[in-house]
Parts: sequence; structure tokens; C-alpha cells
Amino acid sequence: VRPQLGENIGMAARAMRNFGLRDLRIVAPRDGWSEGSTAMQAAADAAAGADGIIRAARVFEDVAGAIADLHCVYATTARERGQSKPVLTPAAAMPAIIAANAAGQRAGILFGAERTGLGNGDVSLADAIISFPVDAGFASLNLAQAVLLVAYEWRRQAVDPTAPVRSPEPGRPAQRASLAALLAYVEAELAAAGFYKPPEKAEDMKINFRNILHRRGLEEQDVRTLMGVFRALRGRRQAR
Amino acid sequence: VRPQLGENIGMAARAMRNFGLRDLRIVAPRDGWSEGSTAMQAAADAAAGADGIIRAARVFEDVAGAIADLHCVYATTARERGQSKPVLTPAAAMPAIIAANAAGQRAGILFGAERTGLGNGDVSLADAIISFPVDAGFASLNLAQAVLLVAYEWRRQAVDPTAPVRSPEPGRPAQRASLAALLAYVEAELAAAGFYKPPEKAEDMKINFRNILHRRGLEEQDVRTLMGVFRALRGRRQAR
Repeated sequence: VRPQLGENIGMAARAMRNFGLRDLRIVAPRDGWSEGSTAMQAAADAAAGADGIIRAARVFEDVAGAIADLHCVYATTARERGQSKPVLTPAAAMPAIIAANAAGQRAGILFGAERTGLGNGDVSLADAIISFPVDAGFASLNLAQAVLLVAYEWRRQAVDPTAPVRSPEPGRPAQRASLAALLAYVEAELAAAGFYKPPEKAEDMKINFRNILHRRGLEEQDVRTLMGVFRALRGRRQAR
Repeated sequence: VRPQLGENIGMAARAMRNFGLRDLRIVAPRDGWSEGSTAMQAAADAAAGADGIIRAARVFEDVAGAIADLHCVYATTARERGQSKPVLTPAAAMPAIIAANAAGQRAGILFGAERTGLGNGDVSLADAIISFPVDAGFASLNLAQAVLLVAYEWRRQAVDPTAPVRSPEPGRPAQRASLAALLAYVEAELAAAGFYKPPEKAEDMKINFRNILHRRGLEEQDVRTLMGVFRALRGRRQAR
């Protein structure tokens, strides 16, 4: 709502795109908005790979027009507004938004201008207020950061929250025979080096070392790496 | 780790401060770091009210030095790294970090340089990887945004998650007598205006209107506002 700098509009578009939101509506941008205008170009440049959101953005003269087709509206604010509306964190607001979407309703989030935020007239059109759980002594978030946090929270809760984060290809866990061969090698070498002293502690010392190796969830490649490490150390000891 | 621009260090400090984190450690900043240096000044300027974090920041030559006193370390990465470590979202990583803190242990989060991120050597020193649940087609977050999301998630989970967001002073709920007076006024005026037709529907029409008023959780001030609205409309009708 009434953003000042095209660059900030572009950064907000990036934040939306990061978390899969696409429908950007701009109310009364200070420097205007038309194909080829400086403001739109600055926004598209700042948006980088999210410039599709900029080009598809719709511009409205006022908030009422921008939210006309929506079913629920939240206003983000940094400060108390003295309006008797529920004030929610992004995390607390999101379940109702997701439920509205699931019921075929459209929800919108209002973000205010860079320095001044939303006006009381804008906030009066919202069902509830979203406020960020910031440190009371340092509450200022810039426009793109506020968009980023709401978009993050939406995606965190909406997009299959049970899905694991993409994960590296798991390596092949070490077969026990590989571990046993490694242990046999190391224990024989340690015995030859006179490591197990006093003899009555030998079994405990072996168990401690075996526990370390088994605790790590070692993969086949790890066992090969360790075998190389131990062989190299043994070679160095013999060379001295 | 190896940040390029002082401005980005400053923005990262702001993001930390927003959510109550304070211990910033900088590894091998590209443009150096000393009192009065251009890089430190640019960082302090960008940090604005968070410049205390900049001035208290410690600088290290390498990651190993920066994390020496920590007990658990997480590396933030945008892409797969082919290292067989757990890959967690910020939300999934945070419970272990909070538990470590509660046990008197120190946890650290590594963030890489602006374009290149963390090197594999840096990641190898971490216990686990934190990756952001971004849209796969648009994964790029800038440094301050990555810091912002981790700091937000920390605060969301760590700082009394049951505390309500700061809320406006609740208004005084309307006493039933105020509502009853409002209804009596409106119903009498509507009856005089011939609104309740046909007469056998009158009771349902009254109930519908009463339900609307009672559904809103009206406050004393709201009732006064509505009474003014209805009186004004009645005046207008009489004037025609």
C-alpha cells in the first residue's frame, strides 16, 4: 500500500517468489506504475528472477479496490493501532488463512509503505492485524522482510508441512562386516603397539572404541576413509 | 563466513537484533575489519539501531576459530552439498538448539558469503545443515534474509511461545443494556418506517438483525457509534 521505491516492490516480489506466492497487488505506488516507467523498471530489476510477479502485478487506486474480491484480509503493522481487532503473530494467523483457502476463499495480506506503514483507514478494512514477534526494542522490519516472514510462515504451514526438506542422497550405511574388519585391523595394530595397558583394561578400552565407531551411523565410504586414516598413521609410526 | 559487503553485515545485524540475537562472529570479511575501516563503517551505517552488534562483533580468521567455544554448529546452505549430514528446516532444527541452550551449551549458525555461500570445508565442521523451505525454482535468499528467517524461527520457538502477541488495550465490551437500548431504538424506528412486512415475518426479521449485532463482539464505543449512525440515517429519511 503506497510503496515509495520500485526497488522495494521488487524485493517484496522476490520474497513472495521464494515461498511460492504470486498474486501481487500494488495500491497507489508513489512514483506511478506503467509499462516502461522508472518505478516498474526498478522493481523488475530488483526482483531479478521474480520479475514475472512484477509484470503480472495489478495496480489499484485504493485498498478497497485491491481487496474487493477477497474474503479475508489481514493488515501487518509494527505498532499498536488502537483498533480493537485481534492481533496475531504470522504463525497464529496462518491456520485461518489456510482454512479459508481450502474452502475456496481468497485471503490477502496488507503491507504498508516503507516508513509510515498502513494508515488507520487501511487497517479498518482488515479482519485482523498481523504483528511480528520482534524484540520490543527493535521492531523495524523493512517491507521485503515483512513480506518474507509472512510468506515463509505461509509456506511452512501450508505446503505439506510433513514433507522432509530435500535431503542429500543418503550414502550406503556401512555393513557390519566392514566395521568388523576395520575394528579387527585397528585392534591388532593397537595391541602390537602396546596400547592396551594394563591388560585387564583391554576389554573396556576396546569396547569404548567400538562404541565410538558404532555411534556415528557410519557409511561404507566413512569406513574406507577411516581405514585409510588408520593405515596412514600406522605407516607413520613405523617410519619413525 | 567471508562476507563481501559491510552493508550486508549490517543488515544481518539488524535481522539478529529484530529477534533478540546478539553474538555476531565474522570470519575473514573480504574488505577487512578494524575500527574506522570502510567495511565496519558501512556495516554500522546499514545496521542503524543495531550497530551495537557490529561494534561488539568478533572477527576470526577461519571457521574453526569462530566456533571453537560452541557445542553445536549448524551450516545454512541453499543447495545440496553431498555431505551426509541431516538437512533440516529452520523450524525442525530449532528444538535441538533451544534444548542445547537450556543445558548451558552454546549453538552457532554459519552463514556463507553473499554469492558463493559456505564452502564444503565450512560445512564439514557443522553437525547438521539448515536449509530453507523455499520454492525449488527460486531458492536464492540474500544473507540478511537467511539470518532473518533463522532468527525469527529461534524467537518464535524459544521466547515463551505461549505469550500472546502484544495486543491493543481491549475496549470495554458493550453491556447488554446498551445493546438492548440500541435494538429498541432501531426496532421502533423500523416499525414506524413500515420495515416489518409482512407482519408475520417481523419476528424473524428482528431476530436476524439482533443476531448480526450480537455476533460482532461489540464494545461500548461501537454501540455508541452505531446509535449515532442509525440516528443520522433516520434524520436523513425524515428530511427527504
